[in-house]
Amino acid sequence: MAIEGILKAFKEGRLDLDEAKTQISSSYFEEIEGTTIDHSRQARTGQAEVIFAQSKTTPQVLSAFKRIADNGNNVLATRVREEAGEALQAEFPDLAYSETANLASLVINEPERLTTPIGVITAGTSDLSVAEEAALTAEFYGSPVLRINDVGVAGIHRLFARLEEIKTCRTLVVVAGMEGALPSVVGGLVAKPVIAVPTSIGYGASFNGLAALLGMLNSCASGVSVVNIDNGFGAGFQAHRINQL
Amino acid sequence: MAIEGILKAFKEGRLDLDEAKTQISSSYFEEIEGTTIDHSRQARTGQAEVIFAQSKTTPQVLSAFKRIADNGNNVLATRVREEAGEALQAEFPDLAYSETANLASLVINEPERLTTPIGVITAGTSDLSVAEEAALTAEFYGSPVLRINDVGVAGIHRLFARLEEIKTCRTLVVVAGMEGALPSVVGGLVAKPVIAVPTSIGYGASFNGLAALLGMLNSCASGVSVVNIDNGFGAGFQAHRINQL
Amino acid sequence: MAIEGILKAFKEGRLDLDEAKTQISSSYFEEIEGTTIDHSRQARTGQAEVIFAQSKTTPQVLSAFKRIADNGNNVLATRVREEAGEALQAEFPDLAYSETANLASLVINEPERLTTPIGVITAGTSDLSVAEEAALTAEFYGSPVLRINDVGVAGIHRLFARLEEIKTCRTLVVVAGMEGALPSVVGGLVAKPVIAVPTSIGYGASFNGLAALLGMLNSCASGVSVVNIDNGFGAGFQAHRINQL
Amino acid sequence: MAIEGILKAFKEGRLDLDEAKTQISSSYFEEIEGTTIDHSRQARTGQAEVIFAQSKTTPQVLSAFKRIADNGNNVLATRVREEAGEALQAEFPDLAYSETANLASLVINEPERLTTPIGVITAGTSDLSVAEEAALTAEFYGSPVLRINDVGVAGIHRLFARLEEIKTCRTLVVVAGMEGALPSVVGGLVAKPVIAVPTSIGYGASFNGLAALLGMLNSCASGVSVVNIDNGFGAGFQAHRINQL
Amino acid sequence: MAIEGILKAFKEGRLDLDEAKTQISSSYFEEIEGTTIDHSRQARTGQAEVIFAQSKTTPQVLSAFKRIADNGNNVLATRVREEAGEALQAEFPDLAYSETANLASLVINEPERLTTPIGVITAGTSDLSVAEEAALTAEFYGSPVLRINDVGVAGIHRLFARLEEIKTCRTLVVVAGMEGALPSVVGGLVAKPVIAVPTSIGYGASFNGLAALLGMLNSCASGVSVVNIDNGFGAGFQAHRINQL
Amino acid sequence: MAIEGILKAFKEGRLDLDEAKTQISSSYFEEIEGTTIDHSRQARTGQAEVIFAQSKTTPQVLSAFKRIADNGNNVLATRVREEAGEALQAEFPDLAYSETANLASLVINEPERLTTPIGVITAGTSDLSVAEEAALTAEFYGSPVLRINDVGVAGIHRLFARLEEIKTCRTLVVVAGMEGALPSVVGGLVAKPVIAVPTSIGYGASFNGLAALLGMLNSCASGVSVVNIDNGFGAGFQAHRINQL
Amino acid sequence: MAIEGILKAFKEGRLDLDEAKTQISSSYFEEIEGTTIDHSRQARTGQAEVIFAQSKTTPQVLSAFKRIADNGNNVLATRVREEAGEALQAEFPDLAYSETANLASLVINEPERLTTPIGVITAGTSDLSVAEEAALTAEFYGSPVLRINDVGVAGIHRLFARLEEIKTCRTLVVVAGMEGALPSVVGGLVAKPVIAVPTSIGYGASFNGLAALLGMLNSCASGVSVVNIDNGFGAGFQAHRINQL
Amino acid sequence: MAIEGILKAFKEGRLDLDEAKTQISSSYFEEIEGTTIDHSRQARTGQAEVIFAQSKTTPQVLSAFKRIADNGNNVLATRVREEAGEALQAEFPDLAYSETANLASLVINEPERLTTPIGVITAGTSDLSVAEEAALTAEFYGSPVLRINDVGVAGIHRLFARLEEIKTCRTLVVVAGMEGALPSVVGGLVAKPVIAVPTSIGYGASFNGLAALLGMLNSCASGVSVVNIDNGFGAGFQAHRINQL
Repeated sequence: MAIEGILKAFKEGRLDLDEAKTQISSSYFEEIEGTTIDHSRQARTGQAEVIFAQSKTTPQVLSAFKRIADNGNNVLATRVREEAGEALQAEFPDLAYSETANLASLVINEPERLTTPIGVITAGTSDLSVAEEAALTAEFYGSPVLRINDVGVAGIHRLFARLEEIKTCRTLVVVAGMEGALPSVVGGLVAKPVIAVPTSIGYGASFNGLAALLGMLNSCASGVSVVNIDNGFGAGFQAHRINQL
Repeated sequence: MAIEGILKAFKEGRLDLDEAKTQISSSYFEEIEGTTIDHSRQARTGQAEVIFAQSKTTPQVLSAFKRIADNGNNVLATRVREEAGEALQAEFPDLAYSETANLASLVINEPERLTTPIGVITAGTSDLSVAEEAALTAEFYGSPVLRINDVGVAGIHRLFARLEEIKTCRTLVVVAGMEGALPSVVGGLVAKPVIAVPTSIGYGASFNGLAALLGMLNSCASGVSVVNIDNGFGAGFQAHRINQL
Repeated sequence: MAIEGILKAFKEGRLDLDEAKTQISSSYFEEIEGTTIDHSRQARTGQAEVIFAQSKTTPQVLSAFKRIADNGNNVLATRVREEAGEALQAEFPDLAYSETANLASLVINEPERLTTPIGVITAGTSDLSVAEEAALTAEFYGSPVLRINDVGVAGIHRLFARLEEIKTCRTLVVVAGMEGALPSVVGGLVAKPVIAVPTSIGYGASFNGLAALLGMLNSCASGVSVVNIDNGFGAGFQAHRINQL
Repeated sequence: MAIEGILKAFKEGRLDLDEAKTQISSSYFEEIEGTTIDHSRQARTGQAEVIFAQSKTTPQVLSAFKRIADNGNNVLATRVREEAGEALQAEFPDLAYSETANLASLVINEPERLTTPIGVITAGTSDLSVAEEAALTAEFYGSPVLRINDVGVAGIHRLFARLEEIKTCRTLVVVAGMEGALPSVVGGLVAKPVIAVPTSIGYGASFNGLAALLGMLNSCASGVSVVNIDNGFGAGFQAHRINQL
Repeated sequence: MAIEGILKAFKEGRLDLDEAKTQISSSYFEEIEGTTIDHSRQARTGQAEVIFAQSKTTPQVLSAFKRIADNGNNVLATRVREEAGEALQAEFPDLAYSETANLASLVINEPERLTTPIGVITAGTSDLSVAEEAALTAEFYGSPVLRINDVGVAGIHRLFARLEEIKTCRTLVVVAGMEGALPSVVGGLVAKPVIAVPTSIGYGASFNGLAALLGMLNSCASGVSVVNIDNGFGAGFQAHRINQL
Repeated sequence: MAIEGILKAFKEGRLDLDEAKTQISSSYFEEIEGTTIDHSRQARTGQAEVIFAQSKTTPQVLSAFKRIADNGNNVLATRVREEAGEALQAEFPDLAYSETANLASLVINEPERLTTPIGVITAGTSDLSVAEEAALTAEFYGSPVLRINDVGVAGIHRLFARLEEIKTCRTLVVVAGMEGALPSVVGGLVAKPVIAVPTSIGYGASFNGLAALLGMLNSCASGVSVVNIDNGFGAGFQAHRINQL
Repeated sequence: MAIEGILKAFKEGRLDLDEAKTQISSSYFEEIEGTTIDHSRQARTGQAEVIFAQSKTTPQVLSAFKRIADNGNNVLATRVREEAGEALQAEFPDLAYSETANLASLVINEPERLTTPIGVITAGTSDLSVAEEAALTAEFYGSPVLRINDVGVAGIHRLFARLEEIKTCRTLVVVAGMEGALPSVVGGLVAKPVIAVPTSIGYGASFNGLAALLGMLNSCASGVSVVNIDNGFGAGFQAHRINQL
Repeated sequence: MAIEGILKAFKEGRLDLDEAKTQISSSYFEEIEGTTIDHSRQARTGQAEVIFAQSKTTPQVLSAFKRIADNGNNVLATRVREEAGEALQAEFPDLAYSETANLASLVINEPERLTTPIGVITAGTSDLSVAEEAALTAEFYGSPVLRINDVGVAGIHRLFARLEEIKTCRTLVVVAGMEGALPSVVGGLVAKPVIAVPTSIGYGASFNGLAALLGMLNSCASGVSVVNIDNGFGAGFQAHRINQL
């Protein structure tokens, strides 16, 4: 829209070619201390701005968060260490911070709330942190989440006991470390898209999640696609994007 | 349903417990020369039986194909070498065989035809074989497919020229070898679920598709999930499953 | 025993120290064209001599086979290509050769026949070649074998339909390629030792069986130990050794 | 048994179909703070509940431990750090905690005590921690253990000096880091099943136990199967399971 | 030059052969506590002496720095931790230290200042540290630098908005972690040599920068060459060397 | 330029917005059997269209080659097998085909011929094929090439004997397999940009060029950047691009 | 010798067979807290007992050290952290401890002092720690050592300046990190056995010494053999063993 | 010597500086079709010229062989396929060609024959090809060789039976595939330098010799150094070089 205005101005001669190009660019970007905050992303891709806080100091996280919120946009920050989480809560009383998932979220504009649930399923309790990152991400964007925990393949009757619940979901995030076999079993039982998340839970020849990742990529079940090791955010986002369709 | 019948018979005493269990099992399975053909899969997961022909001889492929078709079910076979493809065509006049994708399909019961298209996008012409496996799989299950070829990131204007078409799709399969960067660019431009397929196209440090696989797993764009290297079938199936929602 | 004889002779002065040592050694070895055939292995470890034929020419296989058989010992040869298999059958009318398993065996002294069965279970029909190597190995040494085929985790109800049979076995060999998840599921359901065999079935990120191998090593089920990729012989041998206890 | 009761009640009309299914499920599970404690595992697989404490906080370990013990079941916890170990000891006076193995165990119901010993053999003193995890696990389940330490292949006469003792065992756990050669040598000398445990002892090209793991998987001796790097628990459990036969 | 003097002296008989050789050597080297400071490097390769401070203590860094500076040469030190940086600043008031890049530089002889700029472009703000190492290195040697930050491929319009600026540069350093796709896109848009720098930014299957490294090596764009993971210095140096031509 | 014409037409009302966009796109592309031939690449990036023939059939190579040549553009094709090379020569009498480098080139518009040479240096004669790909590529684009062969580091005096020649080059391509050490030595002796090309020459732990690749990426010499294993084309192109500056 | 005594006693009837075997064993071993100290190793292999202290606590190191020294044997301990080094020095006034090499040695019986020197050569000063481990090990066993530091291939004239000295050595230990190219160059210049030691010095694609290790294994120079990454002890020991011949 | 003549001529004015340099260079090299034959190598490093024939055509091998022989030097060629071997034998009646080792050698000047033997020991008969490459190389240079075959660690009594013979050797080459454990055992028993050669014999997780390579690098025995996978030549050469001392 803004661009149409600029183009009209260009056609009507109120802007020359160079001015037109400059205005188009500046309507998109504002560069702050080396970070190009992308205010139009929400419009362009339907995605709120997300801060990947892993390699950022607490002041950097705070400042990035503030800038987006001050523009009236919702903000999600992943891999927020406890210290930064507390600083954010002090600054934004309405902000939600999860210690389990190291995730901070601030909802300024209530998103459209979908009614079909996403299932977030874990193989073991050690996978909870990654699963919560997925679940809270999906909820932040507007999807309800059904959580099913600790139903790994070594005690597969636990999975069967929850199968009817799982079948009520529209799409599934399945989180597992070690051998990462759960998505294959779920994918064979439920005719819904499965987003598989390998976790770095394990030791020795798990090689920090490589074993689970390879297992999921080689799944003999159809309807399984995979995100990066420990990438709960990516799985929750993809599940919500599918749920939106 | 059948199971309800058996359970009723059990309750009414026409079956004892062991007979009940045996009948339930046998209603599901028929074992032929070491292959448990799973006739009820279509009902259970909404998926026709698929034959992975890579390590099978031509007679084995023919015999597995025949058994399923004779039960009146649709059949899809992937990684069918030309020789086996010709043998199948001789046996089943209505069978379609694609040399590009090494894929054979026989439709006996017309599937529900969806109206929303899936986009199948390749980075280079060398990725066509995998992309066709994805496209033909999606079409076999009932999704229309829009093919966009050779729009890799080294000539990114080619992608932009097709962007409006791409945005008409409901979900996207993006196929790329070498550095595998195309899904990230597409994922940043289009707010649709992207199923990324790394291919083994490349040489040297591509390590038979590992470079592309790792690139896609580490995508900085959200809404990208990944299937195995060269797994066009998996991507096409997952895209259709999402399209069905 | 022989050694006791030598030692007595040494004590009684019929042998001096050096002669004693020489006789002990020579009772063990006979070197033929670079291969130290180990005729006493059967006594020492309870294991017939096994020929690993992978990197041997047909004449080399024949000659090694003959030498052992001529000493009146049972022989097993693995990874015997068809050509060598036929040459062996021409030479030894009583020899059994399996094309599926590429395994040749000649029983001269009937082994002790055990009564408790070993279960050999495969995830898919493509795993049959490795599974047969395991099954025929166990049978060669004297264990009965129960074969359960094509019960992989993507259609897990097929496994449940066979569970009662599986529980009758004393120990289990579980063979799977791709993500290699079947041993975890079996190990969680049956309280028997599971010998897991990863196979090189798969493509792309299966990395010739690495994915299945890592999956099995990281099994979340207890009671699972693992042999090398495609090592059906090793699994069959280990299962029989356990069955012997 | 319980299930038979439920089925009878179903047949006699005291339960309808849905109630029957719910009761079966609930007789198995009780979900506590995200952990599905599996009280029936002991019956189903002959295995006490095991807690993998590596990624759990001290309160989480305590609470999981307590819940199982309060049900009157034996408990084993592996990878218990000293702090958690002390907390457990304060709570359960009868609990045994090994600093060497980081293992806590509480025996409430004395297990059946077997009389045939399991041998636990190490290549070097640095492997003791993993070996003790194996030995204490086997003892917890009821197997007597013979410990043979520091008999690695670089001083192989030390192994020969203990060979007669080793031959008295029914099955062997062999623990080694660095090149991981000890299981091959033991497997060639003793006709008993060998469970090989690679350890992460070493540096440089040991790649945290990968060298030992690959060495053991490629063992030229028959009768060797392998568990994950540093997985003393898995080896001790598998050895006991074999010993039970 | 010095060498010509020595050779003349040799010819004129003022030196014998051995003396000549010794003098030539000693004019080049001076060994200080195990470090052969190479005072003639600047003449020989046009490169000031560079200290790689990663595995050096603060006193070692100070002493190496002092020795070079005392000879009147410019000094650059990379991977200088903050503590060492402060110690250097206390000793050399004219020294510049960057906390972002962990780089210390002391210019004694003003280098030739080139007028054509080098572009240093990052995919994300987390790549800034490596990019600054490149930029400050290039500036130290005499190249002006244009910095373009946070224009990664997931928001590719940000790159387009800066394209005209980028095209003014003579050579480009492109810094990216995760999937490392930015150099391919830049290389396809701008006909200038691209030096690609993978960074270790990411997690899981980024394997500490391996994914980005492989991506860049497999770039489908021409005109891209690659340096080691996180090697900002190497990229800045190579870009300056090209800029000097 | 063309775009300016379109924009003017848009401003003057001869085109509406949609028509303008369509015309811009179509001036760039022409899609032929799945390959988007990019006729404007030469203008945009200064690079003739290059065909990567590795995974293409002879007819596909011929047809792609013809299409470009028919547009009056120079063509370069890499990894052209002998059969395809002969077919090309039959079709295009002026085409040059190198069996050593598997490279076909057709010059229709004589490129600007530069006068400063590029040095192409090999460690061993087995590296010649890759080196010729680099040299012929550079010559195709207009750079003269000085070839220096077989001067690997195990006989380093051979390198010194050619050093004065090497110093006359403006930039250097250094090609080596096995340990890949030559670029480090050259980079330490000559103050020119070095493009290092690892080759797959070697065996065992060379892992098809991985050893050489890692060696070059870790070069202790400054001024070395690296291309993919066996990527002679990429190195020759990059060297020419630098030479053009 | 002792064994001859035992055998005579056996022959003369003063020992029965079992007693004879027991005495032979016990003359070799004494088990102390899980460590089989091997007092006869010095006689058997010419090697003093060596303690690998990496995974041992200070009390464990002290106790192992004491036990050997109390038997009147020389002791060498590698990877001794400073704390343990100080404790050893407090206990053994004659002990030498090197902070650079983390090596402690105590000479009780002066070894035979050889006169031919071993050369220990490093590529960079960061390799000194590993090189000192090699040099001090060789000196401990009796070889004189010539140390040549910081002569890596990026400044190869530094190596040439020391070449005559190097040629006076009987065997060479060459220590290098990063690309590990120095052993190839030295091996091409000097006709002496080269023991190459890769170090973990480097970052990024050095993968903790893997790049240097692969480089050295693929050396194009003959007469180069390799030890583990950072294994200065192994190289010094091997060089001394060769020097002893 | 020649160089002294040139220097004298330079001093006496019969040569100017440039002429002197040219003459020195040309006395060393003669370039033939891209291969710099290094006629002075024998003098400089005591090593005859060796041809690595793996990637060379039969005519190329013949021509390289001829050129060296025509200069009156001994020649060794490794990895000579049978066809090339026969062509060489036709050309040089005195040439020896081994089909087992794929090695061709021509002795024109009888080397100095040493009297101390080198032991070449294999784990299995499949390792014979690599072992023969080592043995024939050592013999070519003048060392007598003692061959000990098929004494791998799974039947370790076979090794003990040959131990006295092995101890008569001055240095040992130990060749093993699969887990590569033999060098550790030999190194613990014999106080001689061991050159370990991993072979690519094995399958699955042997990863073409990687398992054996890692095992040998991590050997717990001292006095073991390692060459590349399948590098029999390198081991034989290194053993001879040590034997020469």
